[in-house]
Amino acid sequence: MIVGGRAYRSIWLAEDGWAVEIIDQTRLPHAFVTRRLETLDEAATAIRDMWVRGAPLIGATAAYGLALALRADPSDKNLKAAAAALIATRPTAVNLRGAIEDLCARLRPLAAAQRRERAYARAAEICDEDVEINRAIGEHGLGLIRAAWQDNGQGRPVNLLTHCNAGWLATVDGGTALSPIFQAQDAGIPVHVWVDETRPRNQGASLTAWELGQHGVAHTVIVDNAGGHLMQHGRVDLCITGTDRTTAAGDVCNKIGTYLKALAAHDNGVPFYVALPGPTIDWRIEDGFAEIPIEERPGAEVAEIAGMTAGGEIASVRLVPEGSPVANPAFDVTPARLVTGLITERGICDASREGLRALYPERHNR
Amino acid sequence: MIVGGRAYRSIWLAEDGWAVEIIDQTRLPHAFVTRRLETLDEAATAIRDMWVRGAPLIGATAAYGLALALRADPSDKNLKAAAAALIATRPTAVNLRGAIEDLCARLRPLAAAQRRERAYARAAEICDEDVEINRAIGEHGLGLIRAAWQDNGQGRPVNLLTHCNAGWLATVDGGTALSPIFQAQDAGIPVHVWVDETRPRNQGASLTAWELGQHGVAHTVIVDNAGGHLMQHGRVDLCITGTDRTTAAGDVCNKIGTYLKALAAHDNGVPFYVALPGPTIDWRIEDGFAEIPIEERPGAEVAEIAGMTAGGEIASVRLVPEGSPVANPAFDVTPARLVTGLITERGICDASREGLRALYPERHNR
Repeated sequence: MIVGGRAYRSIWLAEDGWAVEIIDQTRLPHAFVTRRLETLDEAATAIRDMWVRGAPLIGATAAYGLALALRADPSDKNLKAAAAALIATRPTAVNLRGAIEDLCARLRPLAAAQRRERAYARAAEICDEDVEINRAIGEHGLGLIRAAWQDNGQGRPVNLLTHCNAGWLATVDGGTALSPIFQAQDAGIPVHVWVDETRPRNQGASLTAWELGQHGVAHTVIVDNAGGHLMQHGRVDLCITGTDRTTAAGDVCNKIGTYLKALAAHDNGVPFYVALPGPTIDWRIEDGFAEIPIEERPGAEVAEIAGMTAGGEIASVRLVPEGSPVANPAFDVTPARLVTGLITERGICDASREGLRALYPERHNR
Repeated sequence: MIVGGRAYRSIWLAEDGWAVEIIDQTRLPHAFVTRRLETLDEAATAIRDMWVRGAPLIGATAAYGLALALRADPSDKNLKAAAAALIATRPTAVNLRGAIEDLCARLRPLAAAQRRERAYARAAEICDEDVEINRAIGEHGLGLIRAAWQDNGQGRPVNLLTHCNAGWLATVDGGTALSPIFQAQDAGIPVHVWVDETRPRNQGASLTAWELGQHGVAHTVIVDNAGGHLMQHGRVDLCITGTDRTTAAGDVCNKIGTYLKALAAHDNGVPFYVALPGPTIDWRIEDGFAEIPIEERPGAEVAEIAGMTAGGEIASVRLVPEGSPVANPAFDVTPARLVTGLITERGICDASREGLRALYPERHNR
């Protein structure tokens, strides 16, 4: 992704070769600010306080967080403690746990002195793998957008709807749900994206709209309440969202509110696709409702919101009366029956055990 | 409704007997401010800029607006011009048009000199009728809440979910969707209300939460995205919303996002009721999708939001990147098939032509 004429990933090694740099996503769209992470604690804070977010990027940041921890102390004891601290930062996305388990399995057999270098190398590989996965997801999803364009006689842009941010900023680069959209734009297929603002943290209004704007993609920001109405009136051709965790049976856990859009798509015959990298599939889980922990985040994220004042400052304002309690579940589960298909790096499949098994035959479902 | 120890309606005649006073709802929940309306223009502004909102209260304010216009000039020409100006303020709610047509039909035959007094008298009657309607709606809806409490063995509060504000502040007094909830609270039935914040204008977070708090009703504010998840997990017993216009066939036009909650309720077997005063039924319309005009409000309502700063001031902050377009449809239509029942002042009926006709036999459907 290009920002201000310079190519960026969303996470990278600093010039000194050991510290890690990220974009502070809590400051977007109003300010583009990068931050330097030097310790495990800083990496854990970056994940917990959502300077970085998005399942793939959380996984990559956790991998580098473990490398930073081992740089300070490569002992068995610290490896175990750092892994636990990172896994505890966010409970819902499976990539985080997957990345940490991947690293631990590789590092545990090594002598302490060898661990640091191996951790950095593996973190870099995880980042590169994510970029390649997202490129492939984009290619497969591009076919859907191209087909929709042909279906409408190439007479008007293809109207897509997305929820939250599953773009470049949710990944190391390229995006998941937005990858096909960026590729369609680059291929000259006219697209227009309805961007759900995605309360409470407004990742749609603040991150997706910003990303699309940077890439020159036509888009319109809407409140989360509006998508059903647009679908009723034929103004959405295709929905594509990302996911934080997909079960072996094809249930999709994603940002709160995804389920409501899937219901509306189903009710109006609008195809509803979910873009997902293989590492977000939790092969151990069959029943998304019973088994995926749903993170309950601080009520202040609902009660208060930050934005830019007329004077150009970032300020937070309170929206809810003093004394009114607030609940803030961060994710919901969309049952596989509402999902038209899963767009993976290996192709598109049905949201079902059989569909996923056909694409990932090496995985042993329980 | 009691505010700070004093009984209020949401609109009333000033002590001088001719000006009209209202609560400026754009200042809630952070400040309780009343405003004085002295002219047609001020009444039209109060409706258009949403100092007052809610279908019944809009109707009452329009009626008083016409009285103010006739106080200045009771001519035929001014009656016609004032009626047109008021009808143009908001296109979706049917009460507004209904109240104006009601007044015009009564005033047109009168001599100009008699019109002023009759207009004030009829506006007062419209207010009193609304209060009585809402009391009756509350009694009928109370039966549903009582039944839900008995169904759960009286072991825990009845969990309700509502969208937008269909409370005291949306009406002259008493509320529509909240009327049964206030009555349940007063009857000693334990209730807890999930309050959708209702983007973009946050009438739920700012008005419904405030009203419920004033009345001591247990409640929790949630983002509009969260209700489906709560229903999936059995945490909602009953949904009740209001409506701005209901068709003769039972389609319900209400605040944008209502349709999404109705879909979720249907998908999870949660009863979805709509509370409505008879005057919000548009007997001329059968097909809510084709025939109800959906107001498109300014994009700034989505792009910017007002709240209270840490310093106690009301400030507006921008949420959307500069240059990102915004769309803001204000209402959607929930098809009758998703509505469990309509709670009217005459009882509860199916959301269907037959259901409505049985309660309002004097109405001639086309």
